[in-house]
Amino acid sequence: MTATPTAPPGWDAESLVDRFTEVRAHTESLAAPLSPEDQTVQSMPDVSPTKWHRAHVTWFFETFVLAEHERDFAPFQDQYWFLFNSYYETLGARYSRADRGFITRPGAHDVGVYRRQVDDRMRDLVTTLGRTDQGSLDKLSATIELGFHHEQQHQELLLMDIKHVLSRNPLQPVYAGTASARCEPDDLGWVEVEGGLVEVGHRGDGFSFDNELPRHRQWLEPYRIADRLVTNGEWRAFMEDGGYRRHELWLSDGWAKVNAEQWRAPFYWSEHDGVWLEHTLNGTAPVNPGLPVSHVSFYEAEAFATWAGKRLPSEAEWEHAVVSDGQGGAAGGTPHGGGVVNLADTTTYHPTAATPHEQSTPRLRQVYGDCWEWTSSAYHPYPGFHPPEGAIGEYNGKFMSNQMVLRGGCALTPPGHARATYRNFFPHASRWALSGVRLADGGAPRPSDSDLESP
Amino acid sequence: MTATPTAPPGWDAESLVDRFTEVRAHTESLAAPLSPEDQTVQSMPDVSPTKWHRAHVTWFFETFVLAEHERDFAPFQDQYWFLFNSYYETLGARYSRADRGFITRPGAHDVGVYRRQVDDRMRDLVTTLGRTDQGSLDKLSATIELGFHHEQQHQELLLMDIKHVLSRNPLQPVYAGTASARCEPDDLGWVEVEGGLVEVGHRGDGFSFDNELPRHRQWLEPYRIADRLVTNGEWRAFMEDGGYRRHELWLSDGWAKVNAEQWRAPFYWSEHDGVWLEHTLNGTAPVNPGLPVSHVSFYEAEAFATWAGKRLPSEAEWEHAVVSDGQGGAAGGTPHGGGVVNLADTTTYHPTAATPHEQSTPRLRQVYGDCWEWTSSAYHPYPGFHPPEGAIGEYNGKFMSNQMVLRGGCALTPPGHARATYRNFFPHASRWALSGVRLADGGAPRPSDSDLESP
Amino acid sequence: MTATPTAPPGWDAESLVDRFTEVRAHTESLAAPLSPEDQTVQSMPDVSPTKWHRAHVTWFFETFVLAEHERDFAPFQDQYWFLFNSYYETLGARYSRADRGFITRPGAHDVGVYRRQVDDRMRDLVTTLGRTDQGSLDKLSATIELGFHHEQQHQELLLMDIKHVLSRNPLQPVYAGTASARCEPDDLGWVEVEGGLVEVGHRGDGFSFDNELPRHRQWLEPYRIADRLVTNGEWRAFMEDGGYRRHELWLSDGWAKVNAEQWRAPFYWSEHDGVWLEHTLNGTAPVNPGLPVSHVSFYEAEAFATWAGKRLPSEAEWEHAVVSDGQGGAAGGTPHGGGVVNLADTTTYHPTAATPHEQSTPRLRQVYGDCWEWTSSAYHPYPGFHPPEGAIGEYNGKFMSNQMVLRGGCALTPPGHARATYRNFFPHASRWALSGVRLADGGAPRPSDSDLESP
Amino acid sequence: MTATPTAPPGWDAESLVDRFTEVRAHTESLAAPLSPEDQTVQSMPDVSPTKWHRAHVTWFFETFVLAEHERDFAPFQDQYWFLFNSYYETLGARYSRADRGFITRPGAHDVGVYRRQVDDRMRDLVTTLGRTDQGSLDKLSATIELGFHHEQQHQELLLMDIKHVLSRNPLQPVYAGTASARCEPDDLGWVEVEGGLVEVGHRGDGFSFDNELPRHRQWLEPYRIADRLVTNGEWRAFMEDGGYRRHELWLSDGWAKVNAEQWRAPFYWSEHDGVWLEHTLNGTAPVNPGLPVSHVSFYEAEAFATWAGKRLPSEAEWEHAVVSDGQGGAAGGTPHGGGVVNLADTTTYHPTAATPHEQSTPRLRQVYGDCWEWTSSAYHPYPGFHPPEGAIGEYNGKFMSNQMVLRGGCALTPPGHARATYRNFFPHASRWALSGVRLADGGAPRPSDSDLESP
Repeated sequence: MTATPTAPPGWDAESLVDRFTEVRAHTESLAAPLSPEDQTVQSMPDVSPTKWHRAHVTWFFETFVLAEHERDFAPFQDQYWFLFNSYYETLGARYSRADRGFITRPGAHDVGVYRRQVDDRMRDLVTTLGRTDQGSLDKLSATIELGFHHEQQHQELLLMDIKHVLSRNPLQPVYAGTASARCEPDDLGWVEVEGGLVEVGHRGDGFSFDNELPRHRQWLEPYRIADRLVTNGEWRAFMEDGGYRRHELWLSDGWAKVNAEQWRAPFYWSEHDGVWLEHTLNGTAPVNPGLPVSHVSFYEAEAFATWAGKRLPSEAEWEHAVVSDGQGGAAGGTPHGGGVVNLADTTTYHPTAATPHEQSTPRLRQVYGDCWEWTSSAYHPYPGFHPPEGAIGEYNGKFMSNQMVLRGGCALTPPGHARATYRNFFPHASRWALSGVRLADGGAPRPSDSDLESP
Repeated sequence: MTATPTAPPGWDAESLVDRFTEVRAHTESLAAPLSPEDQTVQSMPDVSPTKWHRAHVTWFFETFVLAEHERDFAPFQDQYWFLFNSYYETLGARYSRADRGFITRPGAHDVGVYRRQVDDRMRDLVTTLGRTDQGSLDKLSATIELGFHHEQQHQELLLMDIKHVLSRNPLQPVYAGTASARCEPDDLGWVEVEGGLVEVGHRGDGFSFDNELPRHRQWLEPYRIADRLVTNGEWRAFMEDGGYRRHELWLSDGWAKVNAEQWRAPFYWSEHDGVWLEHTLNGTAPVNPGLPVSHVSFYEAEAFATWAGKRLPSEAEWEHAVVSDGQGGAAGGTPHGGGVVNLADTTTYHPTAATPHEQSTPRLRQVYGDCWEWTSSAYHPYPGFHPPEGAIGEYNGKFMSNQMVLRGGCALTPPGHARATYRNFFPHASRWALSGVRLADGGAPRPSDSDLESP
Repeated sequence: MTATPTAPPGWDAESLVDRFTEVRAHTESLAAPLSPEDQTVQSMPDVSPTKWHRAHVTWFFETFVLAEHERDFAPFQDQYWFLFNSYYETLGARYSRADRGFITRPGAHDVGVYRRQVDDRMRDLVTTLGRTDQGSLDKLSATIELGFHHEQQHQELLLMDIKHVLSRNPLQPVYAGTASARCEPDDLGWVEVEGGLVEVGHRGDGFSFDNELPRHRQWLEPYRIADRLVTNGEWRAFMEDGGYRRHELWLSDGWAKVNAEQWRAPFYWSEHDGVWLEHTLNGTAPVNPGLPVSHVSFYEAEAFATWAGKRLPSEAEWEHAVVSDGQGGAAGGTPHGGGVVNLADTTTYHPTAATPHEQSTPRLRQVYGDCWEWTSSAYHPYPGFHPPEGAIGEYNGKFMSNQMVLRGGCALTPPGHARATYRNFFPHASRWALSGVRLADGGAPRPSDSDLESP
Repeated sequence: MTATPTAPPGWDAESLVDRFTEVRAHTESLAAPLSPEDQTVQSMPDVSPTKWHRAHVTWFFETFVLAEHERDFAPFQDQYWFLFNSYYETLGARYSRADRGFITRPGAHDVGVYRRQVDDRMRDLVTTLGRTDQGSLDKLSATIELGFHHEQQHQELLLMDIKHVLSRNPLQPVYAGTASARCEPDDLGWVEVEGGLVEVGHRGDGFSFDNELPRHRQWLEPYRIADRLVTNGEWRAFMEDGGYRRHELWLSDGWAKVNAEQWRAPFYWSEHDGVWLEHTLNGTAPVNPGLPVSHVSFYEAEAFATWAGKRLPSEAEWEHAVVSDGQGGAAGGTPHGGGVVNLADTTTYHPTAATPHEQSTPRLRQVYGDCWEWTSSAYHPYPGFHPPEGAIGEYNGKFMSNQMVLRGGCALTPPGHARATYRNFFPHASRWALSGVRLADGGAPRPSDSDLESP
């Protein structure tokens, strides 16, 4: 599903074991501040309990690696296969997603036991193969590497999910960290992009998910794109200008949501005595005007852009702008760029303000980290996309309807997990993900373009 | 609400403290086998988490005793008042019932801290008053005694609720105890009752809930009542005779439920490879034919009675039969009778088989304990019923619609909590309570009764 | 189900044909003011289209009389049996109740053709039997008489239903008649009733539904009952005193409805520019304070009574009071009494004000007609009730859960269809029926009653 | 919204009045076979009653033409503005869409009166302006022309909707016409298309909707497209191969629908005694294998394509293929092509079989008419799209989320209403529209394309 036969990951056993240990330990470190009770609860169907995440990523290695390759394989516990399958129809019946919060046992401690046993068996398998059968290890390492990225996706979800769980609690518990000092929005600049016949999608050297392939050509008219994310302060202006009350700013389905769910601010904002507060993983505090707005749906992002006289970028525009700006990065590597990258390796677990401009010509800021950025693109397959055979083929392709693409990464994304071609996706009305807004403009065909024969 | 002014409870401080300590300890002993995760989950809106029960009964003493009588009262934690109010509208906003399972903190351990602090303060208050102000203590002891019975109700609910929580788990955890040995149903006998102008309701000496009052007269035609509960074996016969497929046996609303929820057996039964299994607090085992059927709704009880050519007793018939049979007991005391009383002081936590007849004339068996028994009576106020003023007036009266009365007690009822006049109640379709069936017959007016003037 | 073997209806063929013609013509006269479109619509699941009522009552005669007794019977149209069966499970599959408004054909005209053909065949059958086989006619006439009363029930429902259909229309169409002149509430008096061991239920001479049987004894403590219905003016006082905002007045389920459905006035009231208007079959006009309040649910009736410091009568109290007041009437006959009886033979199709007192001792007013009166009694079987065998046994018995009894009749009840023992019933939250409130008081046991042995 | 200032429609008063008369008469001719009852019913929220369509298109002219331009304008009936506004938020409150079937008055006849009055006033206005103020008429004619196309859209919807209404009726009424004779599928051929940098969208000469603009460039890799629609016979093969039971063929959301709604065949198919029948406007008859499959959702179309090893075309591919094949037609004119065009000017009101190939190189058949063809394109704005100001701006833009584009036209589309650039759209799960499937293949980037620098 990921690396093509001509592009082997090139892992040796030792580096594979090291990376495995590193990824697995990061998950446990994220769960460490949470009590057994915290790890058990599912506060809405989209959310999964922390201990479910910890077990499910373990099940992935057990199912797709150990069960396929371990001699005399036996599952750790038969029922775990049923409990911790997320959505793989090919693998048979599974426990209802909406009911994950009803499972009290295995408890948080038992899940730790499960993890450690699978970890030991994984390390044994890889080490043994490294000594005896490098050919098999080469084939296997693609699946194990997918397991790393899979676990990283769940590391991000674990944080988004526990944020929601804690938000339901009137005691307002803190997960970690402290809130940024109050700051004001920095000037917004625009990056001009020429467009033309450009390429998008992953080139194939280094890891990518299947949905980033195949790399293909696309035509873009000249456009421009904001050099930073929309801020809370700008969002307040939208609200004060009747943003949530003016139907003409909204898509019809979005307007129905505004009314049905009484949206009047971003997801985690609440008004108390005239002050807008925001629930974060650092606790609840007054909304900070200089920080990027977060936890807004596609509908809200789109309405905001309409209000601002702008629009959202397409995913091709986003990707091409980032690459043109020199922030494409080495394939599979960490992005570089002008500013600070705010991923989940800091302890804020929350978007931070854009670093000031360093030169007169705007460069893109906040590209990776801070907030996933809504695009105007539906999540559809790239031309020529074909999912792989078998259960692993269910990883991405079957979700390609009714969702919109987000790009970049967020403050909950593990380091090493963001890249220019990465396609994240959520339904139009989703708000519990750490999503924000970058504006775009231009891109219309020039009048002279229409001189050709018309149908 | 409970004791009338002319019938003071007559508690001295020491016995009050002793009973308090005893009741409170019993709750903790019931929670002891449960992990923090077990204590957190709400598996459906009717169910409350174990730690919520432990906290709510504590809140009851804090709110109705300490807050009213303690000098310089301050709540243990402001938000606990919001979190652990069950349904008292008079006391202001409260946390949504269906969302009790979303609260991870306070955890099971924190609730223990809360309990111990309130316990200490309660004992201090009572001991001090006992030394200084017996008059105030006399008044207060009625509320404290209500708190005992309130906590006992939640002890029973805690067990019913955790039974449901554990039932959702494919790992089939055991709470405690072991299943009874397989046995066959014993012969069913009938107790004949004369009826006439009888009295029902509590006499007022000793504790009762307000819904057992006032004692009043009611006319009963001669009837008879089964000397034991309907068994699983008899229920199997009903099922095999198409009980769940024959519309003519069912009330219209019940038939709608059968079809909408696909009922085809009691709540905790499931069929695997042709064998019917039952989930219990002792684990999952084949259905035992000699045990009382349990976890059936009013609709099922009523349909079974129709199938059997019998009917359910009215609550007046039930109460009068029990008293006539000499099992009325001393007011507030423990019932006596021919057989074993299976309340929650055994370790089965499940109904047991009726003990064999000891004499030729049938006496009522399984009156208290085993299963709450559905009656044909809607849960309505007795003539002249008036709830007390204030928040405590919400205890019973406001629930007097859309529910049916159950009588007797069950294997999860704490000892000392059952009596002949006790009115339990659940909606017609409820199945998660430990409810069973006792049949009745007769009770129709004799033809010669109709000779009077007709409208 | 109706007449017992010892009480034959005693119809001869000619009088049976005459009554048949009369009942059938009345249905058509009620439908006459309605367009084909009016007759087609189902504005909510509880409501049936006019042409469905017209066809269903015809289907009743076709199914239970012609199909059973006509030589060489063939149905008018096969699919009509499927379309116009209301709820008889015994008779097989039927068209979904909630979808009755989706059936455009047969149209209103076609239903008329169906009615006329069945009418002709019914008259032929009865006339022929009258000449050839009086024995068979005697047996058949009980079913035909049931058909008369069945059609009368649907005449009442037809009017309740079309009232709801027209209420959905912003054009505010008028069905018929004109509104009463504004008037003020008359003084409310109380009728004292002794009680004791009384009889309730139908005596068996003349027609009754099976749910009025068997006549049986019941004990009543002394009570009193209001001599007229609660008025709109009194209801306004309840509203202005916070009636719909004070939880302590409501049953818990009722309070949930108030909040979920935003009840703040009776069903057909709406506020425009500070004036309360009421939708009626005579059009929409300001609420008339002297008229009985109508279209209130049981929950509202009960809350009003609590607010007034009174209660609702039980159905036994209601029936016994009416009989004691000399308004029981001859069995099956039309009631008599002091005041005007406002049934559907006037052209108001709406409750009217109580006629003034004529003597110093209050007599019951507005007993029959005006509004069906909620009682405090759940709709349960009388002791010894057994429904008849076969499809006709589904007429009443299976609905005996989750409903409350109403007594008396209303302004939409056909003349000849009301009697003292008649038991109407609706769910607690129903408001589209023409239901109102009569208060009661007393009925509590006297203190000295409790001297007997207590359980 | 439609014609640009530089491209006036060029209508004179007489031709405008003639076309107006023609369009309006066609609506009435479509309603003519329907009874008042047929015209009243709304069988599901997506469906509108026939008389609502007739009134709404009249309201459009009254609101956007008469109210704006008629001297001393007064509405025909105040409440009609409320009742017959479809979704224009700018114009204020409107009657709930899902409740359109509850409005019995105005009846079908009254709507005819409304139509005739507005028609007369429209003709007077246009004729007068033609004589006195050609400048104003030039401006007005763009709105009137939009009204023509708006009414044509509702002519199509009227037929789709009444098809659904009649389908709910067990009497299986026929709207018109007779079913095609049974035939077998014709060979399917493939049309090769070169692609490259192509233009899509309307050129701007002649009428188009705003969503067809602006015309813009897009890059297409070489692809091929089927020369006819998928047939019922081919769909049967899909069903028999487990099409509706194999999760791996489906998008995740589609698979959820299959299970939730128990899809196992196209919308109007039903199985009786092993024979598959299809409900059509011509009545119900066995499924004809040679006809195009119709009334399938996007999910089904996509699953079928996956099963066939093919895919759906994008909307750009569809449009470019049609233009390349010489079937683009003059802007605004009627399409031409090799085969018969089956629009709503025939009396089948149902798709017909593809006409046989006439030459060795496949040409596209069934391009316009028969079935709307699902594409793989989400319904999004074209680059540079801006809706016009005011209420008319709500026509298209606000619906651009959660829907997929369909192209071509169908057997219910009025003649003169189809063109190559026309973008129809429905939600992914919609099945009541007359939608079918055309397959595509190829379009993937060639390996050598990926030689460029990768991010």
